[in-house]
Amino acid sequence: MRVELLTVGKELLIGRTLNTNAQWIGRRLARVGLVMKVVTTVDDDLDEISSALREILRRKPDFLITVGGLGPTPDDMTLEGVAQGLHLRTKLNSQALSMIKEHYVRRGLAAIELTPARRKMAVLPLGALPVPNDAGTAPGVRLVAGQTVIFSLPGVPSEMRSIYRGSVEPEVKRKLGPLARKTFRIKMTGLMESAMAPLISRELKRHPGAYIKSHPRGIEDGVSKIEVDVAVVARDMKAARNEALRIVEEIVEASTAAGATIKSRSDEP
Amino acid sequence: MRVELLTVGKELLIGRTLNTNAQWIGRRLARVGLVMKVVTTVDDDLDEISSALREILRRKPDFLITVGGLGPTPDDMTLEGVAQGLHLRTKLNSQALSMIKEHYVRRGLAAIELTPARRKMAVLPLGALPVPNDAGTAPGVRLVAGQTVIFSLPGVPSEMRSIYRGSVEPEVKRKLGPLARKTFRIKMTGLMESAMAPLISRELKRHPGAYIKSHPRGIEDGVSKIEVDVAVVARDMKAARNEALRIVEEIVEASTAAGATIKSRSDEP
Repeated sequence: MRVELLTVGKELLIGRTLNTNAQWIGRRLARVGLVMKVVTTVDDDLDEISSALREILRRKPDFLITVGGLGPTPDDMTLEGVAQGLHLRTKLNSQALSMIKEHYVRRGLAAIELTPARRKMAVLPLGALPVPNDAGTAPGVRLVAGQTVIFSLPGVPSEMRSIYRGSVEPEVKRKLGPLARKTFRIKMTGLMESAMAPLISRELKRHPGAYIKSHPRGIEDGVSKIEVDVAVVARDMKAARNEALRIVEEIVEASTAAGATIKSRSDEP
Repeated sequence: MRVELLTVGKELLIGRTLNTNAQWIGRRLARVGLVMKVVTTVDDDLDEISSALREILRRKPDFLITVGGLGPTPDDMTLEGVAQGLHLRTKLNSQALSMIKEHYVRRGLAAIELTPARRKMAVLPLGALPVPNDAGTAPGVRLVAGQTVIFSLPGVPSEMRSIYRGSVEPEVKRKLGPLARKTFRIKMTGLMESAMAPLISRELKRHPGAYIKSHPRGIEDGVSKIEVDVAVVARDMKAARNEALRIVEEIVEASTAAGATIKSRSDEP
């Protein structure tokens, strides 16, 4: 199953904001056994958004999640970019407008004027449906394009997470069926990453579906520190755990033989 | 001028690592007046790397910076992916191999064996040149493809930064010529983002080259907090500063008239 992410916003490109939304979604997907395939970040620019969208859809993902650019300001143009990319018109969606009104009522602002800027948050590509946003004003949006389900979420992290949990994740899980993922981390000293490399190569050949990766963690008193992450996805937790444990044992044994000192091996949540 | 970034690594896609390298490079580019155009993040996978590379080159950027995947482990495959994307063969580069040897000598490991894993860091696409890495083992790589200069940097932040400062930034600046960028931030309360939107629209029409963006900062005691960033790029600092200040004054005046209370307006570094 292929999931891609499109994050929109100049603040991400000029380094004002760290892309923590991409990290959060990546983690949530990893937790259900999925590796996000590509993350694309583009500017608040109609042509950049629509051309990125078209390129992503050419790779035929099962899900495309866009984050950011759903708000009331003129540089919030993700939905218009999606529409342009799909050659769709946009239209004021009455259901989305009701959600926006309800949000203001909940905030005690029932008398607020629905200015063009506020109505803009209810203007969706034709065929799209609004998705409830319990944490803010702009609804999320769900749209099907070919074999891809597109979810558009706001960039404010609390709102993005709320809609992801409530609407995106349940649909991803339904499509995926049950899967389990088990992760371990080994910390060791005394082996350089270049000495660890052939060891990991051998393990990856033995366990082709597994994720095994070393991370150099610097040198202290002339001794290399290294961490090795091991992750296995399987149909149930017992199978995932057993294979991951087997890999951990093999790595511990081989690296000890190569002169490493194992500092810890731990379950990762 | 168009600059794109390709960050490679499963750890970014599963949320193990925040993409701070993208943020750091985005900031460095913004400082010289450039907005990075697209950031693409892909898995350690030959086909994903090479197809992302081809898509990026189709957009004809002046610079493409790749980060990650230059190390000795089997999942470090950025250079092979670049070569595949450009239909180039790879070859052991003797200058790169000397740099790697020198690095081990500097670390007091002159007698270290140049295993295949270690030599792999010197295998470059044909026509590429190694770029010195003062902070680690794997050299950076510079390669010209059509009108695009491709720099490949390691993913370890200290190494990436060292090569960026030493080799990438000087070349970007040379191509760009002198430019200055001035940024201000206004903090205010009492205005919702949807009320700020038409105000910003008007300013953007008056100052088409400027960057003006509002960021909602939550609600305290029923009062909306909002920040507005203003940035102007110009040929010299005086011109950038003057235009940015004019925009700040116009926003302060209009939002005060709309009921906002200005909390601060400050220079940003």
